[in-house]
Amino acid sequence: MAVKKESLKKPALAAVKKPAAKPAAKSVAKPAAKPAAKSAAKSVAKPAAKSVAKPAANKQWVFLFNDEKGVAKAAVSWSATRELLGGKGAGLFDMTRKGVPVPPGFTLSTEVCDEFVRAGNKIPKDAWEQALKAVAAVEKSTGKVFGGGKKGKTPLLISVRSGARESMPGMMETVLNVGLNDKTVEEIAAISNNPRFAYDSYRRLLMMFGATVLGIDDEKFDEPMDHIKHEKGVKLDTELTTEDLQQLVAIFKSVIKAETGRDFPQDVYQQIQECAMAVFRSATGHKAKTYAKQMGWKNTLPTAVNVCTMVFGNMGENSATGVAFTRDPSTGEKTMLGEYLINAQGEDVVAGIRTPNPIAALAKDMPKAYKQFMTVTGMLEKKYQNMQDVEFTVEDGTLWMLQTRNGKRTAKAAIKIAVDMAKEKLISKEEAVTRVSPADVDFLLHPQFDGDQYMNAKVEGRLLTSGVNASPGAAVGMLAFDADLAEAWHAEGKAVILLRPETKPDDVHGMVASKGILTARGGATSHAAVVARQFGIPAVCGADSLQIDMAARTVVSNGHMLRQGDWVSVDGARGEAIVGQVTMVTPKFEEQADLVTLLGWADEISAQKTRQDTAGKPARGLQVWANADYPKDAERARQFGAQGIGLCRTEHMFFEEVRLPIVQRMILAKEDATRDAALNELLPFQREDFAGLFKAMTGLPVIIRLIDPPLHEFLPAQDDLIKETTQLQTKRRYEALNDSERAELSHKEELLVAVSQMHEQNPMMGLRGIRLGIMLPGLIQMQVRAIFEAACDVKKEGFEPIPEVMIPLTGHVNELLKVQPVLEQVAKAVMTEKGVTVKYKFGTMIEIPRAAVTASEIAKVAQFFSFGTNDLTQMTFGYSRDDAERGFLLKYVEDGILPKNPFQTLDQDGVGRLMQSAINDGRASRPSLEVGICGEHGGDPDSIDFCYRAGNNYVSCSPFRVPIARLAAAHAALKHGKK
Amino acid sequence: MAVKKESLKKPALAAVKKPAAKPAAKSVAKPAAKPAAKSAAKSVAKPAAKSVAKPAANKQWVFLFNDEKGVAKAAVSWSATRELLGGKGAGLFDMTRKGVPVPPGFTLSTEVCDEFVRAGNKIPKDAWEQALKAVAAVEKSTGKVFGGGKKGKTPLLISVRSGARESMPGMMETVLNVGLNDKTVEEIAAISNNPRFAYDSYRRLLMMFGATVLGIDDEKFDEPMDHIKHEKGVKLDTELTTEDLQQLVAIFKSVIKAETGRDFPQDVYQQIQECAMAVFRSATGHKAKTYAKQMGWKNTLPTAVNVCTMVFGNMGENSATGVAFTRDPSTGEKTMLGEYLINAQGEDVVAGIRTPNPIAALAKDMPKAYKQFMTVTGMLEKKYQNMQDVEFTVEDGTLWMLQTRNGKRTAKAAIKIAVDMAKEKLISKEEAVTRVSPADVDFLLHPQFDGDQYMNAKVEGRLLTSGVNASPGAAVGMLAFDADLAEAWHAEGKAVILLRPETKPDDVHGMVASKGILTARGGATSHAAVVARQFGIPAVCGADSLQIDMAARTVVSNGHMLRQGDWVSVDGARGEAIVGQVTMVTPKFEEQADLVTLLGWADEISAQKTRQDTAGKPARGLQVWANADYPKDAERARQFGAQGIGLCRTEHMFFEEVRLPIVQRMILAKEDATRDAALNELLPFQREDFAGLFKAMTGLPVIIRLIDPPLHEFLPAQDDLIKETTQLQTKRRYEALNDSERAELSHKEELLVAVSQMHEQNPMMGLRGIRLGIMLPGLIQMQVRAIFEAACDVKKEGFEPIPEVMIPLTGHVNELLKVQPVLEQVAKAVMTEKGVTVKYKFGTMIEIPRAAVTASEIAKVAQFFSFGTNDLTQMTFGYSRDDAERGFLLKYVEDGILPKNPFQTLDQDGVGRLMQSAINDGRASRPSLEVGICGEHGGDPDSIDFCYRAGNNYVSCSPFRVPIARLAAAHAALKHGKK
Repeated sequence: MAVKKESLKKPALAAVKKPAAKPAAKSVAKPAAKPAAKSAAKSVAKPAAKSVAKPAANKQWVFLFNDEKGVAKAAVSWSATRELLGGKGAGLFDMTRKGVPVPPGFTLSTEVCDEFVRAGNKIPKDAWEQALKAVAAVEKSTGKVFGGGKKGKTPLLISVRSGARESMPGMMETVLNVGLNDKTVEEIAAISNNPRFAYDSYRRLLMMFGATVLGIDDEKFDEPMDHIKHEKGVKLDTELTTEDLQQLVAIFKSVIKAETGRDFPQDVYQQIQECAMAVFRSATGHKAKTYAKQMGWKNTLPTAVNVCTMVFGNMGENSATGVAFTRDPSTGEKTMLGEYLINAQGEDVVAGIRTPNPIAALAKDMPKAYKQFMTVTGMLEKKYQNMQDVEFTVEDGTLWMLQTRNGKRTAKAAIKIAVDMAKEKLISKEEAVTRVSPADVDFLLHPQFDGDQYMNAKVEGRLLTSGVNASPGAAVGMLAFDADLAEAWHAEGKAVILLRPETKPDDVHGMVASKGILTARGGATSHAAVVARQFGIPAVCGADSLQIDMAARTVVSNGHMLRQGDWVSVDGARGEAIVGQVTMVTPKFEEQADLVTLLGWADEISAQKTRQDTAGKPARGLQVWANADYPKDAERARQFGAQGIGLCRTEHMFFEEVRLPIVQRMILAKEDATRDAALNELLPFQREDFAGLFKAMTGLPVIIRLIDPPLHEFLPAQDDLIKETTQLQTKRRYEALNDSERAELSHKEELLVAVSQMHEQNPMMGLRGIRLGIMLPGLIQMQVRAIFEAACDVKKEGFEPIPEVMIPLTGHVNELLKVQPVLEQVAKAVMTEKGVTVKYKFGTMIEIPRAAVTASEIAKVAQFFSFGTNDLTQMTFGYSRDDAERGFLLKYVEDGILPKNPFQTLDQDGVGRLMQSAINDGRASRPSLEVGICGEHGGDPDSIDFCYRAGNNYVSCSPFRVPIARLAAAHAALKHGKK
Repeated sequence: MAVKKESLKKPALAAVKKPAAKPAAKSVAKPAAKPAAKSAAKSVAKPAAKSVAKPAANKQWVFLFNDEKGVAKAAVSWSATRELLGGKGAGLFDMTRKGVPVPPGFTLSTEVCDEFVRAGNKIPKDAWEQALKAVAAVEKSTGKVFGGGKKGKTPLLISVRSGARESMPGMMETVLNVGLNDKTVEEIAAISNNPRFAYDSYRRLLMMFGATVLGIDDEKFDEPMDHIKHEKGVKLDTELTTEDLQQLVAIFKSVIKAETGRDFPQDVYQQIQECAMAVFRSATGHKAKTYAKQMGWKNTLPTAVNVCTMVFGNMGENSATGVAFTRDPSTGEKTMLGEYLINAQGEDVVAGIRTPNPIAALAKDMPKAYKQFMTVTGMLEKKYQNMQDVEFTVEDGTLWMLQTRNGKRTAKAAIKIAVDMAKEKLISKEEAVTRVSPADVDFLLHPQFDGDQYMNAKVEGRLLTSGVNASPGAAVGMLAFDADLAEAWHAEGKAVILLRPETKPDDVHGMVASKGILTARGGATSHAAVVARQFGIPAVCGADSLQIDMAARTVVSNGHMLRQGDWVSVDGARGEAIVGQVTMVTPKFEEQADLVTLLGWADEISAQKTRQDTAGKPARGLQVWANADYPKDAERARQFGAQGIGLCRTEHMFFEEVRLPIVQRMILAKEDATRDAALNELLPFQREDFAGLFKAMTGLPVIIRLIDPPLHEFLPAQDDLIKETTQLQTKRRYEALNDSERAELSHKEELLVAVSQMHEQNPMMGLRGIRLGIMLPGLIQMQVRAIFEAACDVKKEGFEPIPEVMIPLTGHVNELLKVQPVLEQVAKAVMTEKGVTVKYKFGTMIEIPRAAVTASEIAKVAQFFSFGTNDLTQMTFGYSRDDAERGFLLKYVEDGILPKNPFQTLDQDGVGRLMQSAINDGRASRPSLEVGICGEHGGDPDSIDFCYRAGNNYVSCSPFRVPIARLAAAHAALKHGKK
């Protein structure tokens, strides 16, 4: 059952044809509604007393879709309107105002929801009174009667739907056909002359009311229905007869009585009230909380309640219902993408019982409605300056728009649409840049399948299935048949493909834990597709060849039989799944023209916007640099738009196979001469590495960090040595060791002594960084010599090297005072030897809290600061990252003790405060101080926003995140910068 | 040779008898000096031009001892006078002003020294001109002629001595008999009719000038002298004849020529100038730098140069020379303690050639001089309100005071003198408290020898030697025969007793590295005694039974023969040394009446002085609390005056033998039930511990910290387990294990799995403190239950428990929000169960930098902050203390990268800034916030001073340091507090 699904559930009601059929949009909806709105407004505008204690007495809680004045008074801007009425309500209001045909209705504002929660789940009395007046207004404008009972007048049926400010897939609470009861069902049966339809609508109301309002398990309704179908030998709901449906209505009523101890309310006003309360309760319910957490929101959002006259697309061959996107939400192409069904309910489109037609076919089927639809949607796209996701129903040839909203889209589409709309002058470049999220860019740089491998796999017959290309991207993982397992496997570090017949809101925790999603049912607008696109998870939906056996946990398709845990590769763009693992490749950045264009605009914006940096001088932009240890990384970073290297880790070079033995000799040297000899051997290697970097980054700054890790990292692990020596020692007691074993033991015993001497309780806080430089000055002097020899050499070749030497782990200015002058001497000596001068700087990492606290003193010596936010986070929190991330930190984030993992998103309240004061103090000492960050946070948009505000000159991140950071920097400039 | 010694070196000069013999103190010294002073002042008061560029032109650089006006103009206060003239110069000036008989002379001020250094070791021209005028003034007032050559007039001889603001033992540069040359020596020989004396004085001048001014090694002079003595078959210098001395003069002149390539200057003014320059150079020399470092001063002190007319105690039986303390510097008793020798030079007193007489004997020997001496010293003690250390010479019946200064004293004497003087109303209680240093109190609480053991050792014949009880205290260590070895052994962690024939300034580095000092020569005023007292090192001096063989490194005494490295026990109070190790005991605090009195005054002062705390409210005093884990520690702390327990470490209780297996069961539990059962077993133990604490501290707050260390600390070490399991596993390959081995292996393999799972890269930053409390809530809930059950129980018994529950390692306010309410629930539940209410608080350690940075948020939840300055220092510096203190930190302190070990003295610039802002922010959130520290810094006086200024309510330290902290807190109150 999919009764909770948000879209397209409007059962037909032939009897309401007349008044609803004459909307002529502007004339009917508006004037008829106006007086009602006014009277509602007026009545609440007369408070019982001018008491200050009752300020809410003259508050407007309820807004008719056409209540322009009321909304204008309550909400000064479009965003305020969305906040007041929710996204759905604002869309209905706005469409009505624009003359778009919308069935009459009204919205209980989000403020009602806030007050509802505050008052302990009670609708404010005023609000309810206003709602009743609004119902009367709708009765007036439709000519129908709510609750029926008036001869010759059709009973008014309405839908009640939730609508928060932000659309939350899977969070929509919907009850249709409200207004039906034992009496009105008969009236409608009589007036429509279609009793089957009336009872079908009634049983749907009972189901939806039972599930959504009363919280009864879907199964309690599914079971008797399945039972009847089985009894009658039919498969589809539509095959049930009036009598069957009447029987079901009776059963459903008894289910409600049995489960809740009370009868289904025959009072239609009580129906509305209970529906509204259910919607308001859902705003702070478990699902809402889970969703808010997934989205990283602090609180759940309040929701509005939209009450709308029912219209029906299943009133015959001249009726239809459908959904559409004004541009392709998958590619961004400027072509309308949609589906519709003739003589159908919206639900049918989703349920996949009949195959929907592409929207273009409507031009032939219903030319007039199609033309009107194209005009209306074109107007809506212009009006909202964005791709729209619309729902519509054609009732007996008349078009009704039931929803419009900015359409969800893939990352690729988001970028293309933004760039296209800017080129179409529909939006500005700034707006285009704002439209695209860093996550979109991130996604586009995700690996895709290797084309050849993929084709080969298909040639080999490994295609498992094909379906709707619901969310693009490639994913490889192990099949999990339910969401809980997907989540559990993800927690164990496994790559998971979630396989489901279809997905429900309850599955979201497993969906976000999966690399990819595969469903047997549902199309591009199904729950699975919408959620997958939103979270950037590759998905193939409606792959109907999949025969899933949930009990056996097997799936059969295309001649393959797979079990839970088997590997599958999912291509969300192609809409295909392959048996086994297909290799992935990274798409070429430079070939993604729209992205390159957009990031060019981003850089322009970054450079144009001025910000007040902390020293009081305006600075331009926040540059994006990259962390790169090797020339090839630097080249890639430069392609991706990096404006410098913010961190080159020299020690990575020490681990290379040829070099490690030399490094070990240097470490284990007992005499200076041995050590110096080893250092001299390392010098040419380092010089070569640096020369490559300088060439790749010619004309741009390259920050090279002197050796940072503790030396024992270059030696075998103590645990292993203990084990290996003990083994040999014990063996020796029983049999003579051979020559090679004796030599091994002797070597390992020696190593163990050295390693044990170097062993530290807490190496993170031990002998590393500048501390090592002070204990072994020859090592860093060699490095500085290599840097400047390389720089001089490449300058002679015509390049423009800009080395910046970075001293790690400074905690006290005296450390710098001890080391930096000596290193500058080396630099100057090399330049004199080579007869070349290069521009250079000496600076320090700020990664020790004490360095941040004493930044004022340190900036007197250091020419630049680079915040090592990884270590600074470790020390400021007192977390050992390696230990914490596999230990308590997970629980901390899960329990909300920490809002986010501080190693992913900078902790602005703690670490950020230290950084801010360090920047302020540092610039006070040295106004020209260059400030950046080089931790992993450099690629995190929230952290980049902080760095912009804090006055950084640049952020440095991994080359792959440079494009994301460029966009995030532009966003920060747009948000905080000044012209 | 002891020519560099600061005291008592005034060779007699019979010929200067006349004018110097008629001082009649007031009349001679003053009036005669005045005109000279005026003329000197006047002459420099006429600058060559009124040029602004030459401000120094009218500056007074030189001050006659009687230049009251000049000094008054240049120095507004007594401390400014000391700063200007140095301690010695100020004393001479002051005594002269008070009418004390002082030989005429003058002082080149410390400003000359500063300018000398600034100008690159040049005496300012003006200063030298003023010095020449001062010489003329002295000639006038003494009637003698500098450089001689005037018939009937005695050549003026003078001494030149250094004198910095603070007395620096071993740092005194002295040249006596300046004014002698080949011509004046003959004049004096003739006038005094004592050629032997004249040549003895001349050879002394040559030696001192050679060593002090020209930097020639003492040995170059000692050798020829020893050679002559050997040739002549004499032992003492005094046995040498005039001819011998004339021969020595010739030899010494040739030594000077050979060593320096130039002749000894015959120009007497050049002699003064070179002496003065030598003194000024010494102020920034190696010795001065070493001393400054030992004292913890940032810079060396400038020194003044004192030029004083020579007087002589060896002019016959009516002459004498001596030294004295106005009260006993060892015990503080109010009795004059001194020594003198008739017809002797000061040097003789030190050299130990003749046994000096106790000062009381002077009453019989020279009743008139004695009476005058007692009057003068009594007056000086009153005037300086302090025990005086004086030097005097009686020249032909006339008393001359050559020096007065506040006497060095033992810790015991310092306290007794301060308390006595306050009782005598000579000084205020505040002054008495100021006079005693925290180190004095520390010293008095040092262990002493166990009385019985000590007597037994003597009965057994283990007395090695007895000598002068030069510096009290007990010490046990291994004999080291030279200072370098003592230093090296100390660095290795060995306890050292430094054994020397006598000590010299070059030995100081070894002396301060030793637990005790033992010398064969020298008395209570010897270099060894003075240094030992100053640094609080137990010392026995002048133990002349010691026969030291420096080459063999053996010492023979009292029938024992000891070698380097043998154990010796030194009792500085008894003046004895014992062979072997004698057990030490701690003196009872409450039996030290003077100390108890003084600390009572300290507490009064602390409580009276108001300080502006950071929340703007005046607070009274800085309380001293103690860290105590067990009732017996708490009792001791209370005896020592602790006003609360600032830290009870609950986990220490877990290590006890009976409990550890239960703790391990709790840790290894795989099911909650097993864990809960173990926790229930631990509860009664913890309750009992806490009950004892609450009883001991009834009426005072007791802060109990919930479990802090990582759990693997309670399990065997991973390394050991790897080794042991590998041994057994390897053995199993060769022979069958027996049952117990199999069981052991299986148990250890299981343990190893558990320990490896818990293993952390950096346990300091791992799963401990509140993190553990969040992961294992049952554990801390058990602890809180035990705390409150104990509190309720003892309250029922009539005690007044005040528990304060402290949550360790908080880094984020959300941690507290998660844990604290639950724990308060437990507390309330227990109180309800027991039907008892106790006053309590919940608070947190601030030991994570982030906690300090976000103190404002944390104080909204925590009712108190306790700075864990050990961990806060670790994290703020990024130092793992265990690793750092045996690694780079030593080098950092040695090289001056860190001024002090930040784990001993709080790093005010870094850690302190974090603390200060945390206190400010915390109080802004919660004005009533209780703030203290509980790291080791709580017992460090400098850190206590900081805590006072930062606005702490208390410091908590180990019970033994409570008395020290009480005094330090009073010092801080006196320094920074307001009435």
